[in-house]
Amino acid sequence: MTVDLTNVFHEIDADYENLKELLREAVAIQSVSGDPSKRDETIRMVHWMKDKLEKIGVSCELAALGNQTLEGKTVPLPPVLLGTLGTDTSKKTLLVYGHLDVQPAAKSDGWDTEPFELVEKDGKLFGRGSSDDKGPVLCWLHAIKAAQKNNIELPVNIKFCFEAMEESGSVGLPELLVREKNRFLAGVDFVCISDSYWLGTKKPCLTYGLRGICSFFVEVTGIKQDLHSGVFGGVIHEPLQDLMYVMSQLTTVDNRIRIPGLYEQVAPLSAAEEKTYDEIEFDVAEFRDSVGASHLPTEDKKTLLLRRWREPSLAFHGIEGAFYGPGEKTVIPSKVIGKFSIRIVPDMDPDQVNKMTIDYLNKVWKERGSPNVFKPRPGHSAKPWVVDVNDSNFMAGARAMKRVHNVEPDRIREGCSIPITLTFQELTGKSVLLLPLGAADDMAHSQNEKNNKWNYVEGVKTLLAYIMELGSA
Amino acid sequence: MTVDLTNVFHEIDADYENLKELLREAVAIQSVSGDPSKRDETIRMVHWMKDKLEKIGVSCELAALGNQTLEGKTVPLPPVLLGTLGTDTSKKTLLVYGHLDVQPAAKSDGWDTEPFELVEKDGKLFGRGSSDDKGPVLCWLHAIKAAQKNNIELPVNIKFCFEAMEESGSVGLPELLVREKNRFLAGVDFVCISDSYWLGTKKPCLTYGLRGICSFFVEVTGIKQDLHSGVFGGVIHEPLQDLMYVMSQLTTVDNRIRIPGLYEQVAPLSAAEEKTYDEIEFDVAEFRDSVGASHLPTEDKKTLLLRRWREPSLAFHGIEGAFYGPGEKTVIPSKVIGKFSIRIVPDMDPDQVNKMTIDYLNKVWKERGSPNVFKPRPGHSAKPWVVDVNDSNFMAGARAMKRVHNVEPDRIREGCSIPITLTFQELTGKSVLLLPLGAADDMAHSQNEKNNKWNYVEGVKTLLAYIMELGSA
Ligand SMILES: [Zn+2]
Ligand SMILES: [Zn+2]
Ligand SMILES: [Zn+2]
Ligand SMILES: [Zn+2]
Repeated sequence: MTVDLTNVFHEIDADYENLKELLREAVAIQSVSGDPSKRDETIRMVHWMKDKLEKIGVSCELAALGNQTLEGKTVPLPPVLLGTLGTDTSKKTLLVYGHLDVQPAAKSDGWDTEPFELVEKDGKLFGRGSSDDKGPVLCWLHAIKAAQKNNIELPVNIKFCFEAMEESGSVGLPELLVREKNRFLAGVDFVCISDSYWLGTKKPCLTYGLRGICSFFVEVTGIKQDLHSGVFGGVIHEPLQDLMYVMSQLTTVDNRIRIPGLYEQVAPLSAAEEKTYDEIEFDVAEFRDSVGASHLPTEDKKTLLLRRWREPSLAFHGIEGAFYGPGEKTVIPSKVIGKFSIRIVPDMDPDQVNKMTIDYLNKVWKERGSPNVFKPRPGHSAKPWVVDVNDSNFMAGARAMKRVHNVEPDRIREGCSIPITLTFQELTGKSVLLLPLGAADDMAHSQNEKNNKWNYVEGVKTLLAYIMELGSA
Repeated sequence: MTVDLTNVFHEIDADYENLKELLREAVAIQSVSGDPSKRDETIRMVHWMKDKLEKIGVSCELAALGNQTLEGKTVPLPPVLLGTLGTDTSKKTLLVYGHLDVQPAAKSDGWDTEPFELVEKDGKLFGRGSSDDKGPVLCWLHAIKAAQKNNIELPVNIKFCFEAMEESGSVGLPELLVREKNRFLAGVDFVCISDSYWLGTKKPCLTYGLRGICSFFVEVTGIKQDLHSGVFGGVIHEPLQDLMYVMSQLTTVDNRIRIPGLYEQVAPLSAAEEKTYDEIEFDVAEFRDSVGASHLPTEDKKTLLLRRWREPSLAFHGIEGAFYGPGEKTVIPSKVIGKFSIRIVPDMDPDQVNKMTIDYLNKVWKERGSPNVFKPRPGHSAKPWVVDVNDSNFMAGARAMKRVHNVEPDRIREGCSIPITLTFQELTGKSVLLLPLGAADDMAHSQNEKNNKWNYVEGVKTLLAYIMELGSA
């Protein structure tokens, strides 16, 4: 009993100007969650969305999260918008997550247009939040509107969880979800998140895995205050010298991790899974050019994708406590803290990774033989996430994409973490689908963020098709 | 024809309250040259000193240096105070240099008392500038006053060059001195600077050498913008990883320099010079405790002093372009610049040191085999300075110290640079004496700067004795 959506899809195409106007309004609200001076706007964005949802019959509530101290000021946290559309106990229930806040943006950062004014150019809709994540959130709204206009009955109840602190660490949300486990989250059968990207710019995909992370701080001290390098240079063991040595021992020049046993923790790659990598469309040269590198540690497609998604990686972020300004300063810093992190994958366990890493650092330190004081410690960590690509939620997403794009979507992973994914999975005990709508070059978090007109419109169709497919999931 | 100074010395002791009042007034003027909001006070300090010099018969002029742009504001540079006392062509001429500006200070930095209020406690005079360099400057004034009161004819003409931008790089002074080479600087026979410190707290010393410096920037790039470590971690050559490796190859754990041939440039140590090191009073354990280290690369007195004063040393200062704040940030920086400097000694030549260092960095880079872009380059450099400890100026200083302290002063070097020393030497062609009056624990540039009451009073006597000794130099 598949409902024919041909006519509805045509209507969605025809309704483009309304769809665009909706995004223009949303982009104009400067909901930068990381900027305390824009907290009012961030809260206004939640109310704006609540109004839109109520207009299509969603019953909404605002879950208060209290206050937060930001840059020395106490500011209210934006509430979480919880919505319910349909309470038919004979139907299954889909939970949709999205976020209404955005990254900071200013024309002076190097934008070609005003970041908070939606500008259409060459089939692209430029504006902060157009792709991350206001565009996808509005696709849900519009998909439901289109169904209602055509008197198409939705085969599932839908719950909405829209927050406005995602770009600032989702402060308060995990605790709220834990409190809502047996109320708002009760009875949820499927979860869907549209807040990631296609692997390229043309072919749709579904995301079935995310890497976790283990962060580290490596502190070296040994002198009681910063010293003048003229007076003391040559007769002390410099903490920064020790730190750079230790950090240099963590990886090879090709960015392979030297911590013994780490790669052995990775789940074995089956022949079937390996075969999926052969089928993925991915242009290595295009990727290399997009990062501006002359050469990559590997330029073999399969190896490169495996290293991004399915293997741990170690990245260096910086050093706290040393001179960081431009120009020269002839001081010997007394206490320095190196920062690096390891992305982890199944079956790696954060606790075990932390232990192996600290053990290795201590071993390197012992060999170094410096009399300075060495204090390595783990920072925050998050588990990796991977889902069964054959479960009913995932298959509904795949069928929806095929209906809209006429092509079987790639099954991909992401190298980064979206911690809330695992929270939803653990609290509902159900499958979470990451259903990306935007293209790889949307420049989320960067200058000139855009959403392609085509992706935006097809996104509405995809979400509608997905909702309909869940009826037979 | 040595003039007996016994009675004058007693008078100086008896005149302590006036001496202290003078320092109190000077410390109260907040002549922080690095703070544009205190530029008026810095200029006022020059006028205050001009007034004091004129009262003892010095004919003064203020050499204008124009304007300066500081923190985006255009502010006037404080003028340089040039004074002349005596123009007797049958006498030789001494040029005295000192500075009237100070480092910033605030009680909230951790001072026990208000930094710009002179406080006497336990024989110590606490206050910003009490030791660096207002105290020594006032010792000159008071020494001449004492001679005048006792109708003692000074055996030399004295010229004064007091600037108020020393703590901010002596902006404009070298150019002024070049312009004044054949006028104000003409006819100078001796130069004396009291702006350094004793090696310890009890025994006086004379400084006959300063190290020079060569600064370096090591830039590594290779990706066109900062990247998300989740998305790109593991498949790029990280610039920071390369930089830390290269920096780690510059020194051994004991801070010895690994650049081939560098130590061979150092002037050979004669048996006679080596012997002077045996005679110097220096407590290694006290030094080690003062820096707060558990262990030093060498704890042999002679080796340690040689490494501080007579050997090159390499110090690491920091990294520009990487994450430096507290907490975590999971970004891969795209362009990082490492900063280090090498202190140099006779007979090292800055150009040659620059070449050897850049060559070594390039060699390490080549061995590394990274496809990133590597750009090492030299920063500012200054030549080392060393003077003949047997010249007449130096010997006059030694005799003066012996007259006051009844002990032969140690002959020491400093590990840092005082670039103006070399400027005076080159422009006058005459000997420059560094005659320190303060103790090693005076905490110049730090919290709770002080001048010991004893050092301050004996400083007046030492400078008077030195002026008198120049009569037979
Ligand atoms: Zn997002
Ligand atoms: Zn985002
Ligand atoms: Zn000074
Ligand atoms: Zn100073």
